[in-house]
Amino acid sequence: MSNGIFSFDIYQQRLDRTAELLRTRDADAAVFGTGADLQYLIGSAVTSHERLTALVVTAAGTTTLVLPAVERGDLPLCAINDLNADVVLWEDGQDSHRIVADLVGHVGTLAIGASLTADHLIPIQDLTGAKTVLAGELLKELFMRKDAAEIDQLREAGAAIDRVHARVPGMLRAGRTEREVADEISAAILEEGHVAIDFVIVGSAENGANPHHDFSDRVIEDGDVVVVDIGGTLPLGYHSDCTRTYVVGKPGEKETAAWAALRKAQEAAVAAVRPGVTAAEIDAIARNSLTAAGYGEYFIHRTGHGIGLSTHEEPFIMAGNELALEPGMAFSVEPGVYLPGEFGMRLEDIIIVTEDGGESVNNGPHDLITV
Amino acid sequence: MSNGIFSFDIYQQRLDRTAELLRTRDADAAVFGTGADLQYLIGSAVTSHERLTALVVTAAGTTTLVLPAVERGDLPLCAINDLNADVVLWEDGQDSHRIVADLVGHVGTLAIGASLTADHLIPIQDLTGAKTVLAGELLKELFMRKDAAEIDQLREAGAAIDRVHARVPGMLRAGRTEREVADEISAAILEEGHVAIDFVIVGSAENGANPHHDFSDRVIEDGDVVVVDIGGTLPLGYHSDCTRTYVVGKPGEKETAAWAALRKAQEAAVAAVRPGVTAAEIDAIARNSLTAAGYGEYFIHRTGHGIGLSTHEEPFIMAGNELALEPGMAFSVEPGVYLPGEFGMRLEDIIIVTEDGGESVNNGPHDLITV
Repeated sequence: MSNGIFSFDIYQQRLDRTAELLRTRDADAAVFGTGADLQYLIGSAVTSHERLTALVVTAAGTTTLVLPAVERGDLPLCAINDLNADVVLWEDGQDSHRIVADLVGHVGTLAIGASLTADHLIPIQDLTGAKTVLAGELLKELFMRKDAAEIDQLREAGAAIDRVHARVPGMLRAGRTEREVADEISAAILEEGHVAIDFVIVGSAENGANPHHDFSDRVIEDGDVVVVDIGGTLPLGYHSDCTRTYVVGKPGEKETAAWAALRKAQEAAVAAVRPGVTAAEIDAIARNSLTAAGYGEYFIHRTGHGIGLSTHEEPFIMAGNELALEPGMAFSVEPGVYLPGEFGMRLEDIIIVTEDGGESVNNGPHDLITV
Repeated sequence: MSNGIFSFDIYQQRLDRTAELLRTRDADAAVFGTGADLQYLIGSAVTSHERLTALVVTAAGTTTLVLPAVERGDLPLCAINDLNADVVLWEDGQDSHRIVADLVGHVGTLAIGASLTADHLIPIQDLTGAKTVLAGELLKELFMRKDAAEIDQLREAGAAIDRVHARVPGMLRAGRTEREVADEISAAILEEGHVAIDFVIVGSAENGANPHHDFSDRVIEDGDVVVVDIGGTLPLGYHSDCTRTYVVGKPGEKETAAWAALRKAQEAAVAAVRPGVTAAEIDAIARNSLTAAGYGEYFIHRTGHGIGLSTHEEPFIMAGNELALEPGMAFSVEPGVYLPGEFGMRLEDIIIVTEDGGESVNNGPHDLITV
């Protein structure tokens, strides 16, 4: 969701860059669906469900939004009317896929946005006969390297979620349920500048050992370690995502030792961020650090994921991803330690790759936070 | 979303029928993504975002769920463990598309579920080299003909939303804003047995003339016509959707005349529902009836859409859809009259095709309801 747009020149630059990259890669055109792609390219948050909405950008530099006529109310809400672009409205009963195929023309290679669903992609493939490739692969740098406007948004998102975390010690105490704490956090996410709550994880004691637990009616007890992983959406559609781990009362030796290892691993991975280092290397640094400390088998997920108009996007910080980091990429660094039946811990910041290192948009404490 | 499942034999029958239809259509296998397809076939409401979740069904009768290991918590929530099916969990860093391609094997024709996104479909196409066709086309009768368990759910959904409409006259009065009424309706949708609110439209006076208006801060006035189109999700994932039109105080002659024409058109279309009649014919009956009464140009959308685990699905009741109705198909019949700058009206029931006619799951009054 989104409640606003950037100034139109930002979108025009992105569209021009798309056409330029299509030419560089010998592709003829690109077709993007709703969601993050449309929001990035024209500032539109329209959702048209089973009816096709598609943005067609050609290597020749033309841009056309194909929109169901019933969604015409979205036009003044996005940047399209200020851009060098056309709009084609289609009515029920018209063949929307044929409209896209006609715009694309007789092409060899067609780039496709990740979110376009099979009910639209397969008819477009059949009508054009084009070789389709993922736009995320072909135009990698377009989406992965955030521009200045996006970096500002990610900084603002980081500051907003930091303010929520700063309030968590006032919410978290023995005797309350995870759900009660999660409800207060949800309210705080909205109060601190987000327009939507993306997720709220409050994982106390053994619940924290499941990285995909959200929250439950479990009553938090004295001595519990509590993972709090939260995120929301800013008015312009950019996302926050930050994890801190809290302890109710005094941590035991086991908890203190695990945290020291986790913090060291996370900080080592963040310190390694710079252009040229690969995503897999960042993952390996966090993983090797935890392995050396004896926690390798308890770190059971990838180290991070890209973030922007999607909460999870490229670059994925994981084994096998040989992508070299470039300035403007933004992603989470969030190793964790999960001791089944006991507790979980995670430490997560969003990092933006700079010319010579990395900048964290989250600046709260890296301690195991006592409440 | 969904909070429960049918007994496992219902899913097993659906999977067996899928394999049988694949054989009949000379297709080798089908790959389904998350959403309505997965919910229909194995009762899973899992969402795994950028990580691939896919159900692979082969013509030979094997079924395999390919699931990110981090989502294994979904397994006990769906029917998969009770079915004649395998589960393959994959970890970050593994090539999930290769796993699907290996399960599919060397095939000629592969059916693809509508919701599978390009970021998964294109790699699967590239790895298998198969000709892909939409499962919704190839296996049309599988999804469109509701089985007894689904028809029960749609009846329950209809009764639930009818109870909400029965409460609307107590909420709607001059001096309140559309938003205030919508908030009360939202609460009632949950109170009457839904687990989620899908949409709430409260379109008073000229706002009702835009079929895609939801609600606003406009204060409802005496004499206003108000379109109320509402729907929610039952615990098992099936949707309700029903529109009634209300008038605050006494309707004028113009409103009374338009309603008489609309009611006649809607009831004529519903009365025409039976096996063998085409979707386009149902649309034409509503449209011609309104045209004959002089309102044809003010009916600006299709007559209806299928409903089930999706709020909008096939069969679409519109010009050009030559699909012949069959018993078990379920869809809305919802013509409307929209007078720009003045008011809108719509009358909508969900109809299930029976052996010799149609059954409405909505049974509230067809009057222009005075409040």
